[in-house]
Amino acid sequence: MPKPGQPLPLFGFFRRLLGRDRAFRQAITTITGHAPDNVYLYRLAFTHSSVVRQQGEQARHQSNERLEFLGDAVLGTAVAEYLFRKFPYEQEGFLTEMRSRIVNRESLNVIALKTGLDKLVQLDAAQGRAARSRSVNGNALEALVGAVYLDHGYKTARKFVLNRLLKPYVDVKAMTQTTTNFKSKLIEWAQRNGKNMRYELTGEARPGGVMEFSAVVVVDEEEVATGMGLSKKQAEQLAAERALAALGV
Amino acid sequence: MPKPGQPLPLFGFFRRLLGRDRAFRQAITTITGHAPDNVYLYRLAFTHSSVVRQQGEQARHQSNERLEFLGDAVLGTAVAEYLFRKFPYEQEGFLTEMRSRIVNRESLNVIALKTGLDKLVQLDAAQGRAARSRSVNGNALEALVGAVYLDHGYKTARKFVLNRLLKPYVDVKAMTQTTTNFKSKLIEWAQRNGKNMRYELTGEARPGGVMEFSAVVVVDEEEVATGMGLSKKQAEQLAAERALAALGV
Repeated sequence: MPKPGQPLPLFGFFRRLLGRDRAFRQAITTITGHAPDNVYLYRLAFTHSSVVRQQGEQARHQSNERLEFLGDAVLGTAVAEYLFRKFPYEQEGFLTEMRSRIVNRESLNVIALKTGLDKLVQLDAAQGRAARSRSVNGNALEALVGAVYLDHGYKTARKFVLNRLLKPYVDVKAMTQTTTNFKSKLIEWAQRNGKNMRYELTGEARPGGVMEFSAVVVVDEEEVATGMGLSKKQAEQLAAERALAALGV
Repeated sequence: MPKPGQPLPLFGFFRRLLGRDRAFRQAITTITGHAPDNVYLYRLAFTHSSVVRQQGEQARHQSNERLEFLGDAVLGTAVAEYLFRKFPYEQEGFLTEMRSRIVNRESLNVIALKTGLDKLVQLDAAQGRAARSRSVNGNALEALVGAVYLDHGYKTARKFVLNRLLKPYVDVKAMTQTTTNFKSKLIEWAQRNGKNMRYELTGEARPGGVMEFSAVVVVDEEEVATGMGLSKKQAEQLAAERALAALGV
């Protein structure tokens, strides 16, 4: 018999269970910014297929693979809208390339590690190390986006993606510059070929207090291409890209 | 001078303009199930790049290509969730294949024609016929989904996709029956016949950093067939196909 004042063993069991659950809920809240309603979804999001595979192939729908399929789509949509609004003068090809740079396997793995969610992923110990080395964490991140979507709806999932993943961990600006730096490519071309080149910039105020810039690439006093953007750099970058195309460089 | 009682010519102009606009709004409401707030988005959704290309490459962001990029993502997410809920025991591979059957170019073109939106698409007359024969209408449909998303939000866009496109025009049930998903076929066979089945997977690194996977189908502890591929899924799918042949299913 336990001494008076000591909790019964059974209470200890429930308390440990609750404690474990509370810690998991707390971790999810920290990562996603929203407390989970349906904890099962999040447990599923962190269940790698190696854990359920011992129960045979037919148990595989109890792993995170289905949620990953859903989360991949939600993530893609949130990032698509973000890019669509951020780059109003860029064409579809630019948006597509930027998105694939943001949501590719490697990039997702890096983001996943930064959120610390790798500590929550459930793997079969036997396959653990091999599986861990591949895209387990990135996949779990996608599954987590799927779980938030099912638990709280699109708006919350979108907020999670933008405020907790994209803005803190992805340097979109640097990404546009490394994409291919058309401006320096154009300058190099001009120097190599003894051409005189400059940008002519104009800015115009748009309704809503937005400035719209327009850059014209002028090579040997001839207008070659024009680009527009919400910053001077964006306009010049776009103009340079088009000039390179027009010049056949 | 117009006779008394006759409207001034200018009023006629505005009335025709308004009438045209009203007819367009009505058409959008009929197709999407929601009256447009921001008509500009819908005009953009139906503007093929051939129309703006005369104004030069820099005007191309005024065509529907960017909205198509966004709408493609929204459409993919709505269909992903639909399939996720409709087939709770199917694996990710099945869901992926079903979705690509639903949202592929051809399928979207067919749906677009059924909604009648082809009559709203603005094309450059010169390129008209050639362009029309390609995926112009399917692309405009994706752009329309993007327009609804920006105009009314995700929930309304999702409703449009499910209630106005998927349910009336896509026979999902028939599609599952024609799908040659060997993996799910094999699982069904095992479940029907009370067999225990699983895949044994091994991966090997090949020169050039490529992983090659090998999957063995094991039924009641007996190896039935083997498949190889550059992804686990590919290897399993091939192994399943061969197992079905070996088992005479």
